[in-house]
Amino acid sequence: MSSAIGEKIKLSVFGESHGEAIGCVIDGLPAGVKLDFDEIYKDMARRAPGKDLTSTPRLEKDIPKILSGVLDGFTTGAPIACVIENTNTKSGDYSNLMTVPRPSHSDYPAYVKYNGFNDIRGGGHFSGRLTAPIVFAGAVAKQVLKEKGVLIGAHIKQIGTVCDGLVDYNDITEELVLSLASKSFSLVDQSREELMRNEVERARMSLDSVGGIVECFAIGLPVGVGGNMFDTVESRLASILFGVPAVKGVQFGLGFDFANKNASSVNDEYEVKNGEVKTLSNNNGGVLGGMTNGAPIVVSAVIKPTPSIAKKQRSVNLQTMENTELEIHGRHDPCIVPRAVPVIESAVALGLLDLMM
Amino acid sequence: MSSAIGEKIKLSVFGESHGEAIGCVIDGLPAGVKLDFDEIYKDMARRAPGKDLTSTPRLEKDIPKILSGVLDGFTTGAPIACVIENTNTKSGDYSNLMTVPRPSHSDYPAYVKYNGFNDIRGGGHFSGRLTAPIVFAGAVAKQVLKEKGVLIGAHIKQIGTVCDGLVDYNDITEELVLSLASKSFSLVDQSREELMRNEVERARMSLDSVGGIVECFAIGLPVGVGGNMFDTVESRLASILFGVPAVKGVQFGLGFDFANKNASSVNDEYEVKNGEVKTLSNNNGGVLGGMTNGAPIVVSAVIKPTPSIAKKQRSVNLQTMENTELEIHGRHDPCIVPRAVPVIESAVALGLLDLMM
Amino acid sequence: MSSAIGEKIKLSVFGESHGEAIGCVIDGLPAGVKLDFDEIYKDMARRAPGKDLTSTPRLEKDIPKILSGVLDGFTTGAPIACVIENTNTKSGDYSNLMTVPRPSHSDYPAYVKYNGFNDIRGGGHFSGRLTAPIVFAGAVAKQVLKEKGVLIGAHIKQIGTVCDGLVDYNDITEELVLSLASKSFSLVDQSREELMRNEVERARMSLDSVGGIVECFAIGLPVGVGGNMFDTVESRLASILFGVPAVKGVQFGLGFDFANKNASSVNDEYEVKNGEVKTLSNNNGGVLGGMTNGAPIVVSAVIKPTPSIAKKQRSVNLQTMENTELEIHGRHDPCIVPRAVPVIESAVALGLLDLMM
Amino acid sequence: MSSAIGEKIKLSVFGESHGEAIGCVIDGLPAGVKLDFDEIYKDMARRAPGKDLTSTPRLEKDIPKILSGVLDGFTTGAPIACVIENTNTKSGDYSNLMTVPRPSHSDYPAYVKYNGFNDIRGGGHFSGRLTAPIVFAGAVAKQVLKEKGVLIGAHIKQIGTVCDGLVDYNDITEELVLSLASKSFSLVDQSREELMRNEVERARMSLDSVGGIVECFAIGLPVGVGGNMFDTVESRLASILFGVPAVKGVQFGLGFDFANKNASSVNDEYEVKNGEVKTLSNNNGGVLGGMTNGAPIVVSAVIKPTPSIAKKQRSVNLQTMENTELEIHGRHDPCIVPRAVPVIESAVALGLLDLMM
Repeated sequence: MSSAIGEKIKLSVFGESHGEAIGCVIDGLPAGVKLDFDEIYKDMARRAPGKDLTSTPRLEKDIPKILSGVLDGFTTGAPIACVIENTNTKSGDYSNLMTVPRPSHSDYPAYVKYNGFNDIRGGGHFSGRLTAPIVFAGAVAKQVLKEKGVLIGAHIKQIGTVCDGLVDYNDITEELVLSLASKSFSLVDQSREELMRNEVERARMSLDSVGGIVECFAIGLPVGVGGNMFDTVESRLASILFGVPAVKGVQFGLGFDFANKNASSVNDEYEVKNGEVKTLSNNNGGVLGGMTNGAPIVVSAVIKPTPSIAKKQRSVNLQTMENTELEIHGRHDPCIVPRAVPVIESAVALGLLDLMM
Repeated sequence: MSSAIGEKIKLSVFGESHGEAIGCVIDGLPAGVKLDFDEIYKDMARRAPGKDLTSTPRLEKDIPKILSGVLDGFTTGAPIACVIENTNTKSGDYSNLMTVPRPSHSDYPAYVKYNGFNDIRGGGHFSGRLTAPIVFAGAVAKQVLKEKGVLIGAHIKQIGTVCDGLVDYNDITEELVLSLASKSFSLVDQSREELMRNEVERARMSLDSVGGIVECFAIGLPVGVGGNMFDTVESRLASILFGVPAVKGVQFGLGFDFANKNASSVNDEYEVKNGEVKTLSNNNGGVLGGMTNGAPIVVSAVIKPTPSIAKKQRSVNLQTMENTELEIHGRHDPCIVPRAVPVIESAVALGLLDLMM
Repeated sequence: MSSAIGEKIKLSVFGESHGEAIGCVIDGLPAGVKLDFDEIYKDMARRAPGKDLTSTPRLEKDIPKILSGVLDGFTTGAPIACVIENTNTKSGDYSNLMTVPRPSHSDYPAYVKYNGFNDIRGGGHFSGRLTAPIVFAGAVAKQVLKEKGVLIGAHIKQIGTVCDGLVDYNDITEELVLSLASKSFSLVDQSREELMRNEVERARMSLDSVGGIVECFAIGLPVGVGGNMFDTVESRLASILFGVPAVKGVQFGLGFDFANKNASSVNDEYEVKNGEVKTLSNNNGGVLGGMTNGAPIVVSAVIKPTPSIAKKQRSVNLQTMENTELEIHGRHDPCIVPRAVPVIESAVALGLLDLMM
Repeated sequence: MSSAIGEKIKLSVFGESHGEAIGCVIDGLPAGVKLDFDEIYKDMARRAPGKDLTSTPRLEKDIPKILSGVLDGFTTGAPIACVIENTNTKSGDYSNLMTVPRPSHSDYPAYVKYNGFNDIRGGGHFSGRLTAPIVFAGAVAKQVLKEKGVLIGAHIKQIGTVCDGLVDYNDITEELVLSLASKSFSLVDQSREELMRNEVERARMSLDSVGGIVECFAIGLPVGVGGNMFDTVESRLASILFGVPAVKGVQFGLGFDFANKNASSVNDEYEVKNGEVKTLSNNNGGVLGGMTNGAPIVVSAVIKPTPSIAKKQRSVNLQTMENTELEIHGRHDPCIVPRAVPVIESAVALGLLDLMM
């Protein structure tokens, strides 16, 4: 029953969407790392809503206040605590959700599990808003990783029926990763942006929402990172990625596309290149036997369509135990995939840093 | 760096393919559970190789010897240790693998990580053979879960281009689950077996291998199992499932198929049925906000084609650092998907039991 | 490298003595527990300094601000985050400590470990001030335990050469525990207070400090709490208690006095009393084989004399690597034992609650 | 509910005194460490019973069989599993213990906790015999530590009323540590051996047993080992040490003797010596703020008198719930302190290695 994760780098996330504040504590960071706060704020801005039509117009001012662990811009080695105040929330919108659970949301199981005592407003602790402290922590982790030569960047692989351009998994350049990590609508082929935005707009106009896939790359890792069997790169990243609300699947390299392949066509053969062992392809996404093999890490996560839609839906009244219908008011994202990009990057950064400490 | 996992139910797996023995320790089981050893052996037989053409003819006698934690057929509450001796192994087959790593295998990153000291014979600790103790532990976990009313069964969803029959995720019966859990070539629609076997035979004849997907169901769980954020049903199951060799992706319910869906078509609406809250569909695979919602749990894992194939492949000589070619001799499965079914069931059982303790 | 602890109840403590704020996150609490904030503030006041001559006159206003996890006075089941602002701190007092480490303080090893980047002001993250969030968390834990029938109270067993009155470990009444838990100078025999205060005053007048022992009782636990071997009541409580600054020893029941005893004189024999199994004595402090045996839990922790004293001491200049002398200015407790009482209670409460979840 | 411990170095202990076998799995060891099995067997022999009158004449042949993790004498990086068969056990001796619990033993709480399903024979999983695999694991850990320059040795500080000679905690030589670690009746001043043996013999003749204290030294650690607050040298070592049966107290340096001391007399001042920072005394036992400070680590554990004595004791019949008397037959140690020496060394080695990985 835990919003905490990690072995050496421990992250503890707290807060409820419409409570006093949200935030996190990151424990185990090395001392003496210079933090670039502009970089951190940039990542948080990439996640923040209200930038354009793909996201909710609700204005959040997600300015993280750092309470500890940083002195004169450097990490002290003590835990970093970060608090983000909740402002501009309209609690009234959610008043009936305790009684009538939103389909495909946490409302119903949370009601049962917490016996009705959970904070339902805005989804409470299950709100997507809780990804803001994850992005804060991830942005810090990225900077520690950067000192170790590791770079992380993700892109929107797919929204609805529109896919981004293809990427050669065996040739992920530093330039590409840095470029992806700086964008707010992150694509390999930016010419697809308009098509994707149309897809989202179509959903919005139908009072509906649409899902997608975020694909994340990490380069610069040494060979052999990741432990035996259950403490692998794949296990560790998956357990954090599934902590991100709306993620319903995680795969490495070809992932589910391995199902109908023959080994001869997807095995990543080796060659010697400039005196180093290199793979000729990277269908395994940089992970073999749970360990990094020197090729770029490629991991993707599917984001289900936001379940909060304005369309009328069937639900039940938990007080009267009668069938009823539900119309969700308030402002909701027709597509959270673009905003999920820095969240996925953060989850990957936190997992990799933990394994490398 | 750990082959151990779990919070309340701790599993520690040990052994190397061609070493003295493999086995595991399961810590945290309740006392007083009557174990049905026939059931345990049946599950182990489902995983064992050599039953038919889909698997390697190497004969393993995977008879687990229980060293502790069981008295007069009941669990004592102390850790259960299980040892499976290694017999009938031909170490000679693997002699050159330390020098020339097999593509898409753990060989190369393990060589770097362990500085050449790892036991390379048969893949060592990374061998698929290490799934035998996982199945033992899972079979024990299943029996403890059964006492709690939870049943688990998996099927081959796909091998190569052949898929199993469709299943209504919202209507997984006890009959179906029990039936799947007892089969050695587990399908919902057994008429697909021949097509699938042909797919495997085709790979075998081409000195190749083929991948697939295993889908697992769990029924009978109460509503609200699973913790906050990172300690969820999804995070927990994924971290164990990715510990199974060859798993490259894990998804719940529709999983990656959520990417091109609208919420209105995939949201799981509610109704009152016989005085209970029920979903009208189960696209989320029984998990919302990381918690069970009362619908059957549906989780699937993709298994990549076994990388050990007889076809000649390009690799490198790690001693001379020159390019070379590799022909893998010995007997290898052209498809491990059928044998992976009880392993996936076991991983799911272990994860769910841990969450329910 | 962690200021976080716990398996089911996870506590993450953050902050530095003279930083922005200190606080903690408590994860895993059940939902629906009504919190009595007056009780919480009372415990925090028991720990707060400046009440009398035994403690530093520095005025702290340790008012915890709760950011999450509580709604309308009840726990929501989400993590509780608590922040206590740092005010009224004089950083100037500590300016030279980075260069000249205080004997018997964390200064020197922290300097080496964090490469000089740690926040040295007031001891930074190692400050006794960090026990304030522990007491907050412990006060919450105590209330959850109270609902389970478990009560916790501690007393000053010894300060310098003065001991508290004797207690029959086998007969710790609810009345005694509640009384101890409400006192600010907690003694079984309050007539010893003056003697103890004299002992402290003597140290203060000599620009010195004095140590002592806190003994804690917990009653109302069921038989059999605590796990196998390493996850026992003793291991769990010790690992938290040693997290409290200045604790240098932990013992259960007779503890170190067992060394010169014969079993025949200290074994806790059994009798049937009112239809229940009871011990005739409680030299084991309520724990056998790491499990509760129904007798009161008795655990004590020794608190070393506060190393910050005004007397001139020998130290070294870490910059010049020359011998030097150090005079510590500022206001420091000549004895922290009275203030440690609620901290020890809290550590015990957090450990027991974790084991009982 | 766990016989497993550790973060990076995970130890999982299994077995019951009169079951098939006992043993352990050690996970997380580095690859390429050459193991000296003679050294391992020596440590196991130091723990083994039957060497002389201080211990039980029951002959154990504790020859550990290594099943995995070692190849050609070097660690492979995979988990090391070790099995020790149980032989020469007389189960009949313990037949009535389930009904009439031995005072001060785990019998009664275990009976309640495991609902009567635990293996009571010889104490089952709670038996002191379970320290054999701990010593095996510790002996392995010691060899890994030796490669890092860390040496560990313990001595009998006290048995009954007889104490070993005094040791200058600030001047623990390599010679002393190596000497202690090689003895079977380990003393700093071996002339005390006869007095101690007399003390034990006196207890034996009275059908009684006697307690004592083991004190352990570790030298060669770098400054700054140990984490923040709860993950310190003290917390980590204590949590393992309290896992050793019969340990009822753990202290560092002066430990409980700090209670009546003034800081001015016990603070460990600093000086520069040969260009290095050294303490002038070592009352803190090498640990400040939970971190190593470069001085030798000094930790002691009190061992209660073995509760199994031949003298008639009062107990209860759990079936009839009537008072009764108990005479324990069989062969039992009048003093386990000498045999506990290598166990305490092992616990310290395992804890320190875990912190240093």
